[in-house]
Amino acid sequence: MKKNNLKRLNLSTLEALAEEIREFLIKSISDTGGHLASNLGVVELTLALHTVFSTPHDKIIWDVGHQAYVHKILTGRRGRFCELRKMNGLSGFPKPHESEHDAFGTGHSSTAISAALGLAIARDTEEKSERKKNIIAVVGDGSLTGGLAYEGLNNAGRADTDLLVVLNDNQMSISKNVGAVARHLNALRTASAYLGAKEDVRSILDKLPVLGAPITRGIESTKDILKYAMLPGILFEEMGFKYIGPVDGHDIPALITALIRVRKFRGPVLLHVVTVKGKGYDIAEESPRNYHGVGKFCIETGLPESQPGKPTFTDVFAKHICKKAIRDSRIVAITAAMRDGVGLSRFRERFPNRFFDVGIAEGHAVTFAAGLAMGGLKPVVAVYSSFLQRAYDQIIHDVAIQNLPVIFAIDHAGVVAGDGETHQGIYDIPFLSHIPNLTVLAPSDGNELKEMFDFALEHNGPVAIRYPKDTAGAEKNCEHSEKISFIQLQDGKKIAIVSVGVMLETAQAVADKLLQNGFSPALYSARVIKPVCNELLQQLSNYEYIFTLEDGARIGGYGERIHATHAFAFPDTFPETGTRKELFARYELDAENIYKKILEVLKNGKQKKTQPAN
Amino acid sequence: MKKNNLKRLNLSTLEALAEEIREFLIKSISDTGGHLASNLGVVELTLALHTVFSTPHDKIIWDVGHQAYVHKILTGRRGRFCELRKMNGLSGFPKPHESEHDAFGTGHSSTAISAALGLAIARDTEEKSERKKNIIAVVGDGSLTGGLAYEGLNNAGRADTDLLVVLNDNQMSISKNVGAVARHLNALRTASAYLGAKEDVRSILDKLPVLGAPITRGIESTKDILKYAMLPGILFEEMGFKYIGPVDGHDIPALITALIRVRKFRGPVLLHVVTVKGKGYDIAEESPRNYHGVGKFCIETGLPESQPGKPTFTDVFAKHICKKAIRDSRIVAITAAMRDGVGLSRFRERFPNRFFDVGIAEGHAVTFAAGLAMGGLKPVVAVYSSFLQRAYDQIIHDVAIQNLPVIFAIDHAGVVAGDGETHQGIYDIPFLSHIPNLTVLAPSDGNELKEMFDFALEHNGPVAIRYPKDTAGAEKNCEHSEKISFIQLQDGKKIAIVSVGVMLETAQAVADKLLQNGFSPALYSARVIKPVCNELLQQLSNYEYIFTLEDGARIGGYGERIHATHAFAFPDTFPETGTRKELFARYELDAENIYKKILEVLKNGKQKKTQPAN
Repeated sequence: MKKNNLKRLNLSTLEALAEEIREFLIKSISDTGGHLASNLGVVELTLALHTVFSTPHDKIIWDVGHQAYVHKILTGRRGRFCELRKMNGLSGFPKPHESEHDAFGTGHSSTAISAALGLAIARDTEEKSERKKNIIAVVGDGSLTGGLAYEGLNNAGRADTDLLVVLNDNQMSISKNVGAVARHLNALRTASAYLGAKEDVRSILDKLPVLGAPITRGIESTKDILKYAMLPGILFEEMGFKYIGPVDGHDIPALITALIRVRKFRGPVLLHVVTVKGKGYDIAEESPRNYHGVGKFCIETGLPESQPGKPTFTDVFAKHICKKAIRDSRIVAITAAMRDGVGLSRFRERFPNRFFDVGIAEGHAVTFAAGLAMGGLKPVVAVYSSFLQRAYDQIIHDVAIQNLPVIFAIDHAGVVAGDGETHQGIYDIPFLSHIPNLTVLAPSDGNELKEMFDFALEHNGPVAIRYPKDTAGAEKNCEHSEKISFIQLQDGKKIAIVSVGVMLETAQAVADKLLQNGFSPALYSARVIKPVCNELLQQLSNYEYIFTLEDGARIGGYGERIHATHAFAFPDTFPETGTRKELFARYELDAENIYKKILEVLKNGKQKKTQPAN
Repeated sequence: MKKNNLKRLNLSTLEALAEEIREFLIKSISDTGGHLASNLGVVELTLALHTVFSTPHDKIIWDVGHQAYVHKILTGRRGRFCELRKMNGLSGFPKPHESEHDAFGTGHSSTAISAALGLAIARDTEEKSERKKNIIAVVGDGSLTGGLAYEGLNNAGRADTDLLVVLNDNQMSISKNVGAVARHLNALRTASAYLGAKEDVRSILDKLPVLGAPITRGIESTKDILKYAMLPGILFEEMGFKYIGPVDGHDIPALITALIRVRKFRGPVLLHVVTVKGKGYDIAEESPRNYHGVGKFCIETGLPESQPGKPTFTDVFAKHICKKAIRDSRIVAITAAMRDGVGLSRFRERFPNRFFDVGIAEGHAVTFAAGLAMGGLKPVVAVYSSFLQRAYDQIIHDVAIQNLPVIFAIDHAGVVAGDGETHQGIYDIPFLSHIPNLTVLAPSDGNELKEMFDFALEHNGPVAIRYPKDTAGAEKNCEHSEKISFIQLQDGKKIAIVSVGVMLETAQAVADKLLQNGFSPALYSARVIKPVCNELLQQLSNYEYIFTLEDGARIGGYGERIHATHAFAFPDTFPETGTRKELFARYELDAENIYKKILEVLKNGKQKKTQPAN
């Protein structure tokens, strides 16, 4: 499907195309895994956008980016969907270096309005001769729970520039949407249904005495009716946007008509489009949350193809926090729209009043947790490593300076499968290790995760525990001790191998290889990333060569910190898409490559290496 | 003044007290320097709060914190104002460890609502026997431009908890307030004046046909009148808050009445208080921006006591960006409500269309800059180091992954005088050095700053340039070269001293002392923090002892990165308030202490030290 042909298609052909794309998506994603429900929801919207606008001349920015599959199909990438989210394959997110039709890279939520405003201002400075570019940000209702989206609206709303925000309102973010804005959108939808599309303010005013008290959901009083009649998108109008909508996001002619209409408007415009997540695939429509990001699945039943495997760190955390919460009513849990991903669904069911989904608002999650801790509770912020980057200042300013006992349960730490550059969790060691008062821990298995969590509950200060999206390994029967410190697993001479967290299995394999080849390496599991354990340093000073293994960036990492002879870690580049195993191999962090490199260092260097590799 | 007596005072005594406090503030701050205008604006509001509420039982959280002087005076700290913002003295910000009346530490903007919500939820879990605590967040209109405040409102607005947000609307943030919310507040004030305090919706509706088109500023149509009559704080009401106001923030009885009224309300309440920044000191009222944070000044004239000294890095930047912008129309500048502080006032005057003050919205500033760069412009984000922490994710996700040529002009890097823990700029080297594609530079003088800026303009990727709030030193006539790299200032044997940025003067003094005492140290200025220069590393490998000096945190710092024998940098603690000189001395980073420590290392260590100090 060449996209330039799209504009010549008549309506029935467009509608047939929508069906075809939908079937393709279901078939293709059932084979590869990927983001299903959100893409099924934007088939007609994407078709309409590409019918009315012309990329790459016009710029479409897909907020959060995982709903850009249809856009990719329409811009020449259909043939690559068999390699979706695979190494060297098609990215699951828009990437300017993948296609000129991808105007701006996205992955994290709530960035699109700010980026679009930048593109719009830059456009305004260009020569006026060519046809003016349209700048469009497509933003989900979930993304509006993020403060960055608000900052974008607040600045765009007063900017003297043409900019279209398409609000893709599917009535939920990854987990259920939360907050005042969600309620507002609900009211907009309801008011619209109540009022009909064509009635104007005066006719509403005329009817006022007769209206009585409507009982429709979202409309609480005649005042509300009047309010939404007068100012349909009241919140957005107040923020300086011209509001149009709501439009049925699965009605192609309605979408095209609306887009042609708003294209003529000057200044910032918000077009409110209501879509259904999972549209057209009954099973996904019924429980879109389960079909947000999926693995391979059976189309008929909707069931995942792979059987549940060994328990993951997330599973261990999910169980353990519930177990502890039974005995300690001060434990409360916070997620930023990632309830399932971080393992808090069970906690929410059991302790609904102690569970807080704050929306895609990591900054608030952390400062809110600081307030909870100041008030005497024991808050656990469960968050993906990559998203915790968004709360870096709040960790320092609200938690660490005040030394408050907030627990950070950092899931998806280290390299992350499938998502690529935007979602890697390899920076948490570097961005947390220099924060005073903060303890940073990395378990090597599920048992250690539990032990560390128990330690954190007793510790008088903030504790971060990082673990990957991966199986939790065999659970050893470690002794629980009050103090968390390193473990020596193997004594040795000259060579010490120090493993951080989940690298222990690889470290053991490397140590075995060395042992088989006549070396006598000691093997340590560091467990505590920060503060570095002085006793461990003392022991390490007895070795000539110290090799560290960590699932994180080398610069600012643990190995650099303890002046390792060679630090095995990720180099100074953004790791691309792949499985975790592929990425470890790609960056020579698998046992075989590490073993080879150690031999090379042992051969070349009599002296300890004292210089970093960039 | 014992605060518990406050409740027994009659109105005229309260008013007299307000005058007394105001005189005290002007006198005291003219002696010590500090935040003047914002504190003069909240004298009556603070008196009213302490009359109606009882700290420490009730919790008052002062957003951004620099307006808490009156609160400090009323809670037993008046006698310590002579040592305001001095080392071991009274902090310029609320600190729970300074007083039990300070419910939560603040310093950065927009945190109070989130923290207050945490305290409120924690309060709700307490035994119900005691008198219920009131939780109050006092938030300026400027703080509402920050996304974190919105995240807080969005979550508090749907929380089933009692919480009071006092909106201290002084119609500006540190620079002039910006954005849609500012316009909304303006409309609220105007509508209120237009409508009078007591009129209700029905009476407005009755009048509708007669109203015509009001021309009052902020009210554009009869629709607006109707809108604000029906729903006075429309934006806040939509976000789930009960809105009360606006109230004259200098009218003590009105404030007390309003506070007593809202104290009875359940759920989240927003009280809109309008204050005048600088109130009662004519000179500050006229130009509050100049009296936000001040040094010693003459009360009669308002003029600063100290004469302008040598040019600062900020001055050099301010001039240089204008010079370059004349020739290159693609240069645009962005500030997050810190126009004067970062030296962009002149740029704004000369290039008003290329200047963007985005409000206290650092995240947006960076993503917006990424959009501008993607659109072909050369954006310069000028920001304090400590505030750039709030855009850490945006630097990675929007700028660095896409390798966009955004320039970060990082002012207030290193230790910062007067503000204490919350404003230290010592983490930028650690939080920037591990970001792929980013170049991080540190000039040792103004000339180098210019040279680095020129390099950044030509560089095909993001560049961060960090410099302190300090004089820019003597400007050497360095050659401008296309490549920025290290400089060797002095040849030597065995010992190499490597200075980062502004530590060069100290490094030179240390080198001189060593020279005078029979050593022969080499002296380098690193200039490039990231990527570490391989040629420099090569040269350094010829020395037995490498000492690094940097104005930043040791962990994750430059010295650690190049495996320095000893890295002179700030230890793993939050530096307190003091002058820069005092803080360097306090952490033994002055020439004398560094010299002593080097002698100690030379005496003790035959081998290079290979282990970090925590």
